[in-house]
Amino acid sequence: MHAKPTYIKKSIGPAELEALLVEIGRQILEEGPESFFPHGCATVEVEFCPDRAREVIGAGACRLGYCGCQAPELTSLASYIDHTLLKPEATLAEVDKLCEEALKNKFASVCVNGVHVRRCAEILAGSGVLVCSVIGFPLGQSATEVKCYEARRAIEDGACEIDMVLNVGLMKSGAVDLVERDIGAVTEVCHRLGARLKVILETCLLTDDEKLEACRISKRVGADFVKTSTGFNKGGATAHDIALMRRAVGEGMGVKASGGVRDQKTAKEMIAAGATRIGASASVAIVRGGASSSTY
Amino acid sequence: MHAKPTYIKKSIGPAELEALLVEIGRQILEEGPESFFPHGCATVEVEFCPDRAREVIGAGACRLGYCGCQAPELTSLASYIDHTLLKPEATLAEVDKLCEEALKNKFASVCVNGVHVRRCAEILAGSGVLVCSVIGFPLGQSATEVKCYEARRAIEDGACEIDMVLNVGLMKSGAVDLVERDIGAVTEVCHRLGARLKVILETCLLTDDEKLEACRISKRVGADFVKTSTGFNKGGATAHDIALMRRAVGEGMGVKASGGVRDQKTAKEMIAAGATRIGASASVAIVRGGASSSTY
Repeated sequence: MHAKPTYIKKSIGPAELEALLVEIGRQILEEGPESFFPHGCATVEVEFCPDRAREVIGAGACRLGYCGCQAPELTSLASYIDHTLLKPEATLAEVDKLCEEALKNKFASVCVNGVHVRRCAEILAGSGVLVCSVIGFPLGQSATEVKCYEARRAIEDGACEIDMVLNVGLMKSGAVDLVERDIGAVTEVCHRLGARLKVILETCLLTDDEKLEACRISKRVGADFVKTSTGFNKGGATAHDIALMRRAVGEGMGVKASGGVRDQKTAKEMIAAGATRIGASASVAIVRGGASSSTY
Repeated sequence: MHAKPTYIKKSIGPAELEALLVEIGRQILEEGPESFFPHGCATVEVEFCPDRAREVIGAGACRLGYCGCQAPELTSLASYIDHTLLKPEATLAEVDKLCEEALKNKFASVCVNGVHVRRCAEILAGSGVLVCSVIGFPLGQSATEVKCYEARRAIEDGACEIDMVLNVGLMKSGAVDLVERDIGAVTEVCHRLGARLKVILETCLLTDDEKLEACRISKRVGADFVKTSTGFNKGGATAHDIALMRRAVGEGMGVKASGGVRDQKTAKEMIAAGATRIGASASVAIVRGGASSSTY
């Protein structure tokens, strides 16, 4: 399994070191870390500047099949829906079933926890159904660098869309600069690696002024969507919040309604209020027009 | 701000490359990444083999003041308590108050989300009150490598204790090997960097057999504690579960009761059942002997 050792003969200054690291990164992406460290003694994670990354990580991206994923066209109710399974006790069989349902119904994506991204990406490869994963979920309280790492890992595993949770505590503390840095950093990682970012505001914890501020920050740093809720706190999407968020971000951004959307009537109300995406676990019941008792 | 460039003149094979990466890691730990990449073009994260890491990361550890932290001696009820604040809307002022209360009451630690670890470590430096942080919290569904990164980041920020959530879904799927790999990998990171690991079972989602299996796995991979609950699911600690977990792990490991422990009577019941640590937000009320209406 060991690749042929690489010998590089040169005097090394900072610029060359950087080039060397690019080469290490390329080999690791192409051949795995064990090719570089045959004795399994060290692992290396290298993050490059955007210009270099485009070339280097792009190769890995294509290999994993996630680059160039397009936002779904909104041609049917199903095409609005991120088919969602985030409960901690979800089994692998339930994850597989989620993917089957998404394929059958042509949902926009499956939305799953990080541990399941690679499995879903393999099942859904080439189908047009995307994989969406959650970051800092559901509390939004991990350090910014951890959110960035988690996003990168999910994208490298095959996620095209990343739903990250706003740091509500920092927002409540008036630390708007830190909130902006948090969202901005994850946006940068997502866009550099070809994925879209949705920012989950957790609206049930925010005042209307805070929701507006969070929308303005998300728009300013270039996030692709704002999203109402994790589904793990005390409230979910409301038509009031969707309309408020749509007004705040204008027409150029996506707005996702999530949490408590369990039937077709509610889904259509959200779309009428301005939603361009729906997060739901009762997605099959929603497209069939029935109601479901399942919780998000 | 730029350090003097480093010039290394040599022919490079795999072994030397590794040594070079050790040197890069050392410089990054001591001087920050900008010293190595003056143009801010690249950042590098390097994880080394345990033998090398002890020396290299040890330097950073000492610099950050977390290495050599001792488990608290159980001399008072307060010394059993991880004073906990994990709600997503917690403000910086509430985090500061948590630290003040922990200092005043000599609690074992403060238990906070990742974003607050560095702030708490600065406030509590040299006091003997530790910083505990949560990983993959509260769902336990991030990828193993993400949990490892999150743990490392928390420890580098000053955490001495890491409370990670079991991957309940994998346990329910019978993927015991993946559960063991998950806990084992985080244990390895924690111990390599001088921190202790608690494994949160989320007992309310497990059968008694699954709780026993989770305890056996945690013990086998060398984790330091098993812990009942996140406090974010449908149930918390019970004396039944504490006794079961204590029997499963024997006397050599810690057992932490968390979730719903809101008064002194309950705290003492947990200790009588075998708990050596209590996670609570109502800690001040607990040591004073009163009750509290606050939720964990």
